[in-house]
Amino acid sequence: MDDKLLYEKLDSLSVQEKIGQLVQLTGDFFEGDIDTVVTGPLKKLGLNPSYNIYNTGSILNVTDPEKMIRLQTKYLEHSAHQIPLLFMADIIYGYRTIFPIPLAQACSWNFEQIERAAAISARECYEEGTHVTFSPMVDIVRDPRWGRVMESPGEDTLLARKYAESTVAGIQGRKTRSGAVPADKIAACVKHFAAYGAPVAGREYNAVDMSEHTLREYYLPGYQAAIEAGAKLVMTAFNTLNGIPATGNEWLNRDVLRREMNFDGVLISDYAAIEELIMHGYAEDEAAAAKLALLAGVDVDMKTAVYANQLEKIISGNEHMLELLNEAVYRVLKLKNDLGLFEDPFRGLQETVRRGSSSILADEHKQAALSLAEESVVLLKNEHELLPLSPQTKIALIGPYAEENSTLGIWAIKGNEADTINLKTGLLKHADPARLSVCRGAYMVPLDEREALGKYADKLPAETVGEEELLEEAIRNADEADVIVLALGESIYQSGEGGSRTNPALPEPQLKLLRELSGLGKPLAVIVYSGRPLILTEVAEKADALIQAWYPGTMGGEALANILYGKANPSGKLTMTFPRCVGQIPVHYNELNTGRPNLPENGSYRFASRYIDEANEPLYPFGYGKSYTSFAYSLLSVSRKEMKRNEPIEFSVAVSNTGSYDGKETVQLYIRDKFASVARPVKVLKDFQKIFLRSGETGTVQFTIREEMLKFYGSNMEYKSEPGEFEVYIGPSSQDISLSFSFVLLPEEEHE
Amino acid sequence: MDDKLLYEKLDSLSVQEKIGQLVQLTGDFFEGDIDTVVTGPLKKLGLNPSYNIYNTGSILNVTDPEKMIRLQTKYLEHSAHQIPLLFMADIIYGYRTIFPIPLAQACSWNFEQIERAAAISARECYEEGTHVTFSPMVDIVRDPRWGRVMESPGEDTLLARKYAESTVAGIQGRKTRSGAVPADKIAACVKHFAAYGAPVAGREYNAVDMSEHTLREYYLPGYQAAIEAGAKLVMTAFNTLNGIPATGNEWLNRDVLRREMNFDGVLISDYAAIEELIMHGYAEDEAAAAKLALLAGVDVDMKTAVYANQLEKIISGNEHMLELLNEAVYRVLKLKNDLGLFEDPFRGLQETVRRGSSSILADEHKQAALSLAEESVVLLKNEHELLPLSPQTKIALIGPYAEENSTLGIWAIKGNEADTINLKTGLLKHADPARLSVCRGAYMVPLDEREALGKYADKLPAETVGEEELLEEAIRNADEADVIVLALGESIYQSGEGGSRTNPALPEPQLKLLRELSGLGKPLAVIVYSGRPLILTEVAEKADALIQAWYPGTMGGEALANILYGKANPSGKLTMTFPRCVGQIPVHYNELNTGRPNLPENGSYRFASRYIDEANEPLYPFGYGKSYTSFAYSLLSVSRKEMKRNEPIEFSVAVSNTGSYDGKETVQLYIRDKFASVARPVKVLKDFQKIFLRSGETGTVQFTIREEMLKFYGSNMEYKSEPGEFEVYIGPSSQDISLSFSFVLLPEEEHE
Repeated sequence: MDDKLLYEKLDSLSVQEKIGQLVQLTGDFFEGDIDTVVTGPLKKLGLNPSYNIYNTGSILNVTDPEKMIRLQTKYLEHSAHQIPLLFMADIIYGYRTIFPIPLAQACSWNFEQIERAAAISARECYEEGTHVTFSPMVDIVRDPRWGRVMESPGEDTLLARKYAESTVAGIQGRKTRSGAVPADKIAACVKHFAAYGAPVAGREYNAVDMSEHTLREYYLPGYQAAIEAGAKLVMTAFNTLNGIPATGNEWLNRDVLRREMNFDGVLISDYAAIEELIMHGYAEDEAAAAKLALLAGVDVDMKTAVYANQLEKIISGNEHMLELLNEAVYRVLKLKNDLGLFEDPFRGLQETVRRGSSSILADEHKQAALSLAEESVVLLKNEHELLPLSPQTKIALIGPYAEENSTLGIWAIKGNEADTINLKTGLLKHADPARLSVCRGAYMVPLDEREALGKYADKLPAETVGEEELLEEAIRNADEADVIVLALGESIYQSGEGGSRTNPALPEPQLKLLRELSGLGKPLAVIVYSGRPLILTEVAEKADALIQAWYPGTMGGEALANILYGKANPSGKLTMTFPRCVGQIPVHYNELNTGRPNLPENGSYRFASRYIDEANEPLYPFGYGKSYTSFAYSLLSVSRKEMKRNEPIEFSVAVSNTGSYDGKETVQLYIRDKFASVARPVKVLKDFQKIFLRSGETGTVQFTIREEMLKFYGSNMEYKSEPGEFEVYIGPSSQDISLSFSFVLLPEEEHE
Repeated sequence: MDDKLLYEKLDSLSVQEKIGQLVQLTGDFFEGDIDTVVTGPLKKLGLNPSYNIYNTGSILNVTDPEKMIRLQTKYLEHSAHQIPLLFMADIIYGYRTIFPIPLAQACSWNFEQIERAAAISARECYEEGTHVTFSPMVDIVRDPRWGRVMESPGEDTLLARKYAESTVAGIQGRKTRSGAVPADKIAACVKHFAAYGAPVAGREYNAVDMSEHTLREYYLPGYQAAIEAGAKLVMTAFNTLNGIPATGNEWLNRDVLRREMNFDGVLISDYAAIEELIMHGYAEDEAAAAKLALLAGVDVDMKTAVYANQLEKIISGNEHMLELLNEAVYRVLKLKNDLGLFEDPFRGLQETVRRGSSSILADEHKQAALSLAEESVVLLKNEHELLPLSPQTKIALIGPYAEENSTLGIWAIKGNEADTINLKTGLLKHADPARLSVCRGAYMVPLDEREALGKYADKLPAETVGEEELLEEAIRNADEADVIVLALGESIYQSGEGGSRTNPALPEPQLKLLRELSGLGKPLAVIVYSGRPLILTEVAEKADALIQAWYPGTMGGEALANILYGKANPSGKLTMTFPRCVGQIPVHYNELNTGRPNLPENGSYRFASRYIDEANEPLYPFGYGKSYTSFAYSLLSVSRKEMKRNEPIEFSVAVSNTGSYDGKETVQLYIRDKFASVARPVKVLKDFQKIFLRSGETGTVQFTIREEMLKFYGSNMEYKSEPGEFEVYIGPSSQDISLSFSFVLLPEEEHE
């Protein structure tokens, strides 16, 4: 449909019909007899009984293909204007083929594989009828107390941008001139606008407060990258930003998002966030909430009655509000048109039904999930080259994650534990069953911590055996083995949305198990499953080898087994700092120097920026991750050390695999702006390259430093670079700098 | 000297002489032969050898009266223009008579006594020759990891304002038309401008980042109150604020401090903070640092060579910079003139010498310190009315603070431990020595934590006896007693400036002692000495009675003994929240509601703003503190429930002492603005009154709610109230609401 027809369609709608396009309801409104919904879900939601369900514009989280066909068919039978329903769903890191959680994916630093994963998710969605996914989430996070960090690429802005670009490309395809979303692709929705990842004290949904500088410098570029990549939708955030709820924030959504960031797609509220403007103390009632949200530019009201019940009164006799309504409805219609729904309201679904099969869980999908899981895992420690294990080694596999399929994370709504390869199953692809014993050792979540998980507690394994018995069995097994592989972690219900923890550590029974086993003196490899950086200080002390597995997805057990046995060589690098203790939080690599940095040569000098009871440095820094092999760096050439704005610096680095395994290395480029009108961080990641090198091989990595990479937001929010000295650091992590050099950006007058 | 003469004095100075007025050096520049300083301290500081020491405008922390007379005399002999030296010193909460630390003082909620304490400090300073004190510090703090919280009145803005007003009045006297500082008074310097109390992760000197809304709403009013009270000086902060170091921040110091806040006094850098602009990465070298600081309006360079070495070049040929220099020098001369130094360069000092005695440590000073200490102590728990103790009770006084004189906090530079009454000495004023045993029980700081304290570690008691032996002695003593009084705490060197702790808890050996003694089943009263809210969750569980003593000053032991024996009834109320665990930090009472508050009726509902492993609520809330008696509240009258802007609401509360002890109660008034264009906190302290009531007595407390109290900073930083509904809460703490009512602020149009 061309734009003119779209506007005609818009004009043909009554006000009620227009408002309906902005309403999103869940599946229960369309269960059973769609016409009797008034007495059920409608009433529950508080929707006006006169609301016509057939005006509704979109549906949330209905993903059953047969139901979707039934629903769309019936809906169109009743829709006067033949505007198809949009189906939107939370498909975050996989549809049925579940990939590692986003925080893990980012640790691969392999954005081609991440794009591939997003493309596979989109394809499975497309085939089963979902039109829009609420992904990517690119909220920067510096606080591992916040459970939802598992959906974020981590603490770094460049990686958030890369993650945004690659996932939008994967989900939606490369940006097209017409705006059409091709077959096999669906629409992407970047979230949560803005700064949802910075709640006070890491407590879910808590207030966010930050300077405009920090917002623009670190938090906004990820969303911006998604918009530039063409993301069709943006989702508002639940939080207040500096006192004003994001969902009712006109400055944020109209001035920044629409005008500055040039977003012209659909802005959807997060779940019930328009209604929550009341709880925030920002809107006095539903009418005020509706008005504030529409003024702020929110197009779609996810799952409340506020727009449905209130907008008509608000628009009545108000030309400006009517104009805003029309704009919002146009954007929804445009999205439907971009998805081709006017031509084919069923999109991929009909094709799937016709074909009688889909690509869901296809081998190539699982292979992609396996490969990404292998690259997402981070090897944190490997003393005495305990890993990889030889197939002859007698292994005691112990721990609550030894034989656990619940490793998908809580936001894999279509993921199936039955499809999942757990660690034991994975190991058995390599190990002689006679040389592998398996036991639980400890329950994942102690009984006294379960109640707080609410209804999710019921999904945890029942405690049928006493803790002592589990421990004794573990010690017996360990005694008979050459190596202990201890699979610990937090439950998937302890992380994710609503999973904030004041103490993000392993539960005490698991630490007790660790201490007991560590006391045996056997080689001990620990694998940690988690949705966040846990406090692993004691674990790192006691383990000979330590692997951060995250929630590795459908193929996780196989990926970990491949790593344990050396079939895959770990190459993941942390994208979020691992603190030594809770009291260091927030700790991130790109901090400011302060006026009194804690220099090693000052020892215990009191008046430095430091703690008197703990190091400033984290347990594991951003960018850190080991390999079974080793790499050596040398600087080959730097094109110039005095840079003009339009003449980039080019240089190359030779990287040699000096160890005995083939492997991949992520070469990281950090820059420090030594002096500026706004103090700049001690280092900022500006580029990186991941390369594969065979044992003994030397490769060359090329980098280009452009003036654009030196820009920052000044005190008046102007985005600019400033002449002066810069330091360049190249190395395998943010702390471990192998090479460095300085250059000068010349002032304008000297080269114009 | 009138202003005209002052300007003539200014005009008579050479540029070098002017610059000298802006230079502040420490005493070592004037030790021994003042003329040979060039080869010693001058060189060490990097001062240009040509710098004339007799141009120096002020001296830091020389407080020996004889030396001051010698120095001023010699200085004036060499001073061409007869401009006396200013002596400035860190006299924060007492000169020789040491009062409780500021955080403790604020817990008295007795600002008359706080003013009296400041007046006594000022008098002792005046008599011994100090002209300027670097007090008050009114940095709002929400993070007990930050050691310097001990110098702050806490987390609340109203209390910071009251603390600012009362201390400036005490130090400097009521504001005079002429600006003259009367005899017995000295000049006050409010600090640290701005927001020094909010370093990232509670790490000393770390970056500060916050919205302008938060800065203006919570952090600035305390400084503003000091300026309105007439504070002659303001000190810059060490930190960056949103990326720009406070000491070089033109917007902060010129636009906000000078123009908006109308400050026309002397702006002094914190210690070396101008030079530190380089370390911050804000100034490229000393010349840039000098220029940026002068542009930002910093008048005095504390303790670096930057102004002395660089300003001349900067001013040369630059009319604007010369003008800024003249303004700065004028302000310094004006301060000296306000102090009457041109008439009497020795001020109180000569009088003291003439008299041959001073009021230092006078009985009335000590009585004031005693009284304020008694009101600063906070009774946190008192199960089964364990306290007060009877003089017949057999007491085992145990713990590292049982007989410890080092209870003044690290910023009592003239305080003398020999003047200090420790807990044992205090108890012996009441107790029969035969019924009091005393032992240490544990060392205050474990050996392995001492190294991090640097040179301060040497001041801790040597470990001459083994830990086990100490513990055994404690158990023996406890066995023979009726009640255990356990005096625990952090060392004064573990708090204060440079005393940031990731884990602000009692050291492990003290917790072990607590556990052992608690296991004996004897009544256990615990007293905690600290410079911050410690994590006391386990202590609170095990203690029958719990007293927060802070660092109570010279008379601390006597104050605590009076409380333990009921000669004084505790009346302190916390001015800072005590978290349950480190992971709750920052936690403060005036938080936002969020869109998904954790309502009790929702139980363990996952998608609320909460932690899954800990309550949201702190261990002890802001405003909390118990008494030996009990109070009942009733609402007497509310003048109106519909308020016009110019017609305040008046109401009164009857408070009855329903217990069997006379005592003081602090009645707290909180207001919640239910809906506003910027979300307002769940409650904000707006007024309070502390009243004394005899047992059985009923008193009346009057409150007035004025429109001014309903104002806040809107999204464009306009300060305003908004019509609508407000809730009023009255009670003995921020959590324990005894009375409440609602009122409506009517819109303008309805009453104009």
